[in-house]
Amino acid sequence: MGFEPTLGLCLGPWNYSYTAMKEVGECVVAVPSASLLEQVVAIGNCSGETIDKFKEFELTAQPALDVNALLVTECLYNLECHVVNCQLVNDYNFFVLQGVRAWRNQSPSDTRSFHAVGDGTFIIDGEVINLRHKMTKWQDCI
Amino acid sequence: MGFEPTLGLCLGPWNYSYTAMKEVGECVVAVPSASLLEQVVAIGNCSGETIDKFKEFELTAQPALDVNALLVTECLYNLECHVVNCQLVNDYNFFVLQGVRAWRNQSPSDTRSFHAVGDGTFIIDGEVINLRHKMTKWQDCI
Repeated sequence: MGFEPTLGLCLGPWNYSYTAMKEVGECVVAVPSASLLEQVVAIGNCSGETIDKFKEFELTAQPALDVNALLVTECLYNLECHVVNCQLVNDYNFFVLQGVRAWRNQSPSDTRSFHAVGDGTFIIDGEVINLRHKMTKWQDCI
Repeated sequence: MGFEPTLGLCLGPWNYSYTAMKEVGECVVAVPSASLLEQVVAIGNCSGETIDKFKEFELTAQPALDVNALLVTECLYNLECHVVNCQLVNDYNFFVLQGVRAWRNQSPSDTRSFHAVGDGTFIIDGEVINLRHKMTKWQDCI
């Protein structure tokens, strides 16, 4: 949400994680690679209330260091987060998270991430364009 | 931010648009195609306070219908928005917007969009994957 490692996350009361997030006040945000896409969709279409998702989807859990949640070893990145603001949770299901520790997979088989477009389709990362030299106003931030 | 056309937007006080957004309470969110990337970076590295960006960057302005802001004809999509919540503006520069009218470019020369990665690099949209049939829990939303 800015130059700090602050994230905004929408999570509805229909998700099992919603209650956990409100109660525990911390979480891990894991960024999967494109090769995990089908697993991610399957994970998003069942509930942690009835299934151990790590076991069911053969993912490797690793303890985090600063929060009481698990890292997903296969993901590209894992960000340990504290919930720092809940003012918009009731009206918009919107949590503000502060990243407190970041992990990077140093030998991923696929470095491409993806975006959900919202209608059941997903867009895989394509070409990377480096325009750092044109960020004249923002050189201090990059 | 959910199944409604609600958007979250971070915009700092160092941007000319920030004051306008707070005062006017409405805006247009325009989604550029990848072919406009270099122009977008240039647009983000100067200020509307001293430059007419439409003129400078040879973009075509069109009046919106429900808000007092201009559409960018060359973009893929334009979303007319009302600011509906400013509770997190002081602490996080975070505005909540409600989309009130959407426009789609019906003959774009490039349909790929892109994401800023935050360090002066950008990732262009790659392959589109359709997994609607696997969204078993969310069939009503797609």
